[in-house]
Amino acid sequence: MITRALVGDAYTPVNANEVAYLPQALIEIDSSGRIDRVTPAADPSYAARLKAAEVQHLVEHLPADQVIWPGFVDLHVHAPQWPQAGLALDKPLAAWLNDYTFPLEAKYDDLAFAKRVYHELVHELLSQGTTTVLFFGTIHTAANLELARQCMQQGLRAAIGRVAMDNPDQTPDYYRDASAGEAVAATERFIHQLKELGAENPLAPLPVITPRFVPSCSDEALAGLGRLAHQYDLPIQTHVSESNWEHQYAIDRFGMHDAAVLDHFGLLTEKAVLAHGTQLAPKDQALLRERGSALAHCPISNAYFGNGVLPVQELLAAGNQVGLGTDISGGYSPSLYDNLRHAVALSQVRNDGVTTQDAGTAGSRISMTTAFYLATLGGAKALHLPVGQVQAGCLADLQVVSDRFTRPAESPQDRFERLMYQTTARELRQVIVHGETVIDHAG
Amino acid sequence: MITRALVGDAYTPVNANEVAYLPQALIEIDSSGRIDRVTPAADPSYAARLKAAEVQHLVEHLPADQVIWPGFVDLHVHAPQWPQAGLALDKPLAAWLNDYTFPLEAKYDDLAFAKRVYHELVHELLSQGTTTVLFFGTIHTAANLELARQCMQQGLRAAIGRVAMDNPDQTPDYYRDASAGEAVAATERFIHQLKELGAENPLAPLPVITPRFVPSCSDEALAGLGRLAHQYDLPIQTHVSESNWEHQYAIDRFGMHDAAVLDHFGLLTEKAVLAHGTQLAPKDQALLRERGSALAHCPISNAYFGNGVLPVQELLAAGNQVGLGTDISGGYSPSLYDNLRHAVALSQVRNDGVTTQDAGTAGSRISMTTAFYLATLGGAKALHLPVGQVQAGCLADLQVVSDRFTRPAESPQDRFERLMYQTTARELRQVIVHGETVIDHAG
Ligand SMILES: [Zn+2]
Ligand SMILES: [Zn+2]
Repeated sequence: MITRALVGDAYTPVNANEVAYLPQALIEIDSSGRIDRVTPAADPSYAARLKAAEVQHLVEHLPADQVIWPGFVDLHVHAPQWPQAGLALDKPLAAWLNDYTFPLEAKYDDLAFAKRVYHELVHELLSQGTTTVLFFGTIHTAANLELARQCMQQGLRAAIGRVAMDNPDQTPDYYRDASAGEAVAATERFIHQLKELGAENPLAPLPVITPRFVPSCSDEALAGLGRLAHQYDLPIQTHVSESNWEHQYAIDRFGMHDAAVLDHFGLLTEKAVLAHGTQLAPKDQALLRERGSALAHCPISNAYFGNGVLPVQELLAAGNQVGLGTDISGGYSPSLYDNLRHAVALSQVRNDGVTTQDAGTAGSRISMTTAFYLATLGGAKALHLPVGQVQAGCLADLQVVSDRFTRPAESPQDRFERLMYQTTARELRQVIVHGETVIDHAG
Repeated sequence: MITRALVGDAYTPVNANEVAYLPQALIEIDSSGRIDRVTPAADPSYAARLKAAEVQHLVEHLPADQVIWPGFVDLHVHAPQWPQAGLALDKPLAAWLNDYTFPLEAKYDDLAFAKRVYHELVHELLSQGTTTVLFFGTIHTAANLELARQCMQQGLRAAIGRVAMDNPDQTPDYYRDASAGEAVAATERFIHQLKELGAENPLAPLPVITPRFVPSCSDEALAGLGRLAHQYDLPIQTHVSESNWEHQYAIDRFGMHDAAVLDHFGLLTEKAVLAHGTQLAPKDQALLRERGSALAHCPISNAYFGNGVLPVQELLAAGNQVGLGTDISGGYSPSLYDNLRHAVALSQVRNDGVTTQDAGTAGSRISMTTAFYLATLGGAKALHLPVGQVQAGCLADLQVVSDRFTRPAESPQDRFERLMYQTTARELRQVIVHGETVIDHAG
């Protein structure tokens, strides 16, 4: 049954190199939260379908200054780090972790604190046009479940991981799993509790196997988490070769690259999403391709902590799966708009080089169309979710954006690029998740 | 005579490495549009001065969630290019100029078009917290005067240049000064007309000598413009070594570097503001230092067109004058907040390198404090204007910004950094120019 319909100018990604423009499309949404049908204005059935929906008072005609595109998919958010977004970015990684991040994450044994922060964060992400998020939580099950509750209450589609971190060498005494066994057992308990909490809820967050990163985990924990991922057929999230330090750590401890370590423990599956990867060697990139594991490209965070710019264009051309992440709070911005703009700009810098001596790496440039793909369909594929497109059969997760400026002579492609460069939270008129408007500035 | 006073938590740049925090400062503004006095809460006279101002109903107490800092100084805006901000950024420079930029700029012989665009642009810049702008106009005097009118009407402090471009090899037939003589004569006429238009107006825009860039101008035009700059003691703006192409062009035509060409024609003065400079050699940087000429660092634009990242930290340490610019529309964003964040992120990339092989250039990192300096005091110094600080004697050009989040444990320095990373137009409550509130979202 059709429950609502939108009529407006829509843009949707087709693939990494193509965006489709659907002028005055009729987008019909059904009671299961899906897009039932997208009818272009030129379709012979358009007038009749529009009339039928109008008779039932289901149609919202968007004003000419508004456009529609899919909600964004954020593949990498550390929910507990939200209060420190924008802080300590000039600190070396060790200080950032030990003086800021670990003490903050440890606070989430206070459920009232967790509730306050997670309420604010979920609202903030939605108000930036993000409709699906892959979250790292903390080691605290109650706080992680509170994050799930906030997502369901406010209408954010999510996958949530209870962070596992038991290696005493690389984690502080006050914030660590008591043992490898406990790291794995607590993860398994969280899987069940989250499933119970979400029962019957169409926005029930998916549990995610979440070793923090290789350095934080013992071999036994990594192995146990790999087993859980297979047993329950769940998504996995972690970090991979994020920085020179992390890349070298794996070599020193295991005599192999970070990606190979993850693979060794059964953690490189086609449901794995790996953050960063700036230091991946070509053989590591090939391994990810073979396994079907996706990369969460976090361009802002990488500028601060990545010691390099991910070769996004080369990876996509080779067939790697890539989506986009904010990496709150290694990245300061909760906006994927900010991140897709940085992704384009940094790809230019990679292409052209930094110093007057440096000729750069030709072929590294990505277009805004590619960046849009990363923020939508790229993320949807990484999570195996039917979102990220304005298309029949996809879940109705959408943004309605206002264009503050009148540019009569512009082509649809030019308008798309300009809006991708200019849109901020201020320009969002509606955010729709599962067919329901969850942010409404339509007034 | 004191005409208004603000009480609130203020931040002001001290120098490139230091920001001062003034909790609950009493900021008294006089009828000449200047800050008469800034009284810290700890000052013995504070209570009495506050009381005296309150008795006269002059005081506005800002809510605890609002902070004050100086309005931003944008050192590089091509006003006529505003309609194409965000367009064609994936095009090579030649296509960007010939297929987009020149045809657009030629349209400003239509005064109605100019009025529509300039009204929109001036409002947009103010609403992003920018209170002083150094503008390139077009070759059209009437349109340039309309830009001046919009600035005075809406309350934007500005310096405006009539663009000179007479070289037939590097400019299109439909958009070019008829001769070198005409380029210089039209510039001189514009100086007088602008002075007349602004007579008696405290926000009268300053005229600026504006050779587009070396490739666009004949030797004779460059020489004539250099003479005018000295005759009228006026600021100069142009581009310098923006890209590999521009840098090489000067070498091919003159057998010397771009900066040396400008110097040869008397265009490197202590009132000169040169955009970009990513390809400047060390000897060029030294020449700029010697002459006291400033650089307008445009980080977003440079990512697309600069073929490199400006070594801001090295330049500041060596004693070069540097401020910040959006470079609309080589840069897509009208926001100096966006640009200061890119300045920091790109300095990190310069520091750390781009590829897995590239170790970067140690010592290139700039802090958020430095980026804030560039957007405020750095720009003010480049223009020799008493703005960019919350300080007695400075013109009262200020921003009042709301902090949407409550972070009780944060230090003032942490709050400053977080707000610099998070603030957008949405968070601006008031923009004040010359003591008057020109953007008011205080409600
Ligand atoms: Zn992360
Ligand atoms: Zn320019």
